[in-house]
Amino acid sequence: MHRTKVKIVEEALDANDTIARANRDDFDRHDVTVVNLMSAPGAGKTSLLERVLADLGGVRAGVLEGDVQGSLDADRLAGLHVPVAQLNTAPGFGGECHLDANMVRSALGALPLAGIDLLVIENVGNLVCPAEFRVGEDVRVMVSSVTEGEDKPLKYPLMFRACELVIVNKIDLLPHLDFDLDKFLHHLDQVHPGVPRMLVSARTGEGVDAWRDWLVALATRERSGALG
Amino acid sequence: MHRTKVKIVEEALDANDTIARANRDDFDRHDVTVVNLMSAPGAGKTSLLERVLADLGGVRAGVLEGDVQGSLDADRLAGLHVPVAQLNTAPGFGGECHLDANMVRSALGALPLAGIDLLVIENVGNLVCPAEFRVGEDVRVMVSSVTEGEDKPLKYPLMFRACELVIVNKIDLLPHLDFDLDKFLHHLDQVHPGVPRMLVSARTGEGVDAWRDWLVALATRERSGALG
Repeated sequence: MHRTKVKIVEEALDANDTIARANRDDFDRHDVTVVNLMSAPGAGKTSLLERVLADLGGVRAGVLEGDVQGSLDADRLAGLHVPVAQLNTAPGFGGECHLDANMVRSALGALPLAGIDLLVIENVGNLVCPAEFRVGEDVRVMVSSVTEGEDKPLKYPLMFRACELVIVNKIDLLPHLDFDLDKFLHHLDQVHPGVPRMLVSARTGEGVDAWRDWLVALATRERSGALG
Repeated sequence: MHRTKVKIVEEALDANDTIARANRDDFDRHDVTVVNLMSAPGAGKTSLLERVLADLGGVRAGVLEGDVQGSLDADRLAGLHVPVAQLNTAPGFGGECHLDANMVRSALGALPLAGIDLLVIENVGNLVCPAEFRVGEDVRVMVSSVTEGEDKPLKYPLMFRACELVIVNKIDLLPHLDFDLDKFLHHLDQVHPGVPRMLVSARTGEGVDAWRDWLVALATRERSGALG
């Protein structure tokens, strides 16, 4: 009896993962480090970018703005003289509440990948679905505002688990809120023990240097090294 | 030649609308007024309910809590001695970022419809998808926190359009924010001209009486009247 050895495909990818890998290949070819920036609506993603993008110590940044519609955030960032592309999920993609790999791929032609070192993809404001779709990024950064309450890691655990850095924003408001920072951090460690975190106020600038340094270090370390 | 008159079904319903109508029939049979309460994560939906549900001047309230997972909000409301049912979208429905009519229908058996006059359905925190799914409600109420920024009506217009009341919450924080209330209201009128709005602080109680009165009036007016 002749037996054919059956080849087992161990990691069958869904369509999103396949396209995310194609994006990843393009990013690698141009040596671009990619950050997927996620948060609830109004947590301060764009403000955090406004604070640092113009001065990244030689690191050339670009931004892909994801929104259901409009280009308000892209317009804000355009003044920083970094390349910005706007991706709207409403007309072409049916009003999706997140970015996926195919949407990002559709927008790559609008970005000068050969001329940047760091691409920040600002996702649609949402604490559920963005975490479910890889887009070819190196790392995912989650912004959580102290105004949203201490319970958010417990209510949206996937989001807080699927990231390499948590930025706790709007800490200038802490004196005016019933928000227990220790409790929040305890909840964070319950769902993602030890995840790096930063306390920041995009409004006052407190903690912004650490955020800038983190981005610079990410974009300048050897790609063959720690990124894995 | 024999010609058959073709019957045109003008409003073909999708499955969600069909189930929403079935929910509506159940609510009507028990004379229950239903509010679909929507907002971004952490805008203060639960806090606004904590403020008013225990004292609605004879109106008997119940709550259906929608969350991806956990029962933190339901646990908070349970202390008010009103019937509360928790609906999780994660285990049964795949981690959905919104409630739909079928999920609500699945939970109706857990609520004493015959013993309540007003049912508040607290949707999953999200500014995109909840607006796309009717669940059989009479009205939709949208909560927007001033900490989220003035641009939200323009960025998430469907949400601000698909509601009968907008509650602007956390106004106690206005002195500490770069938030132009007039600009926000102007943006709101751009996407939903003249929609009723209330300025509220669930934290200090400012404006909460108007919110309570609004719910009582909604639940006590004749069902055959203004609800249409």
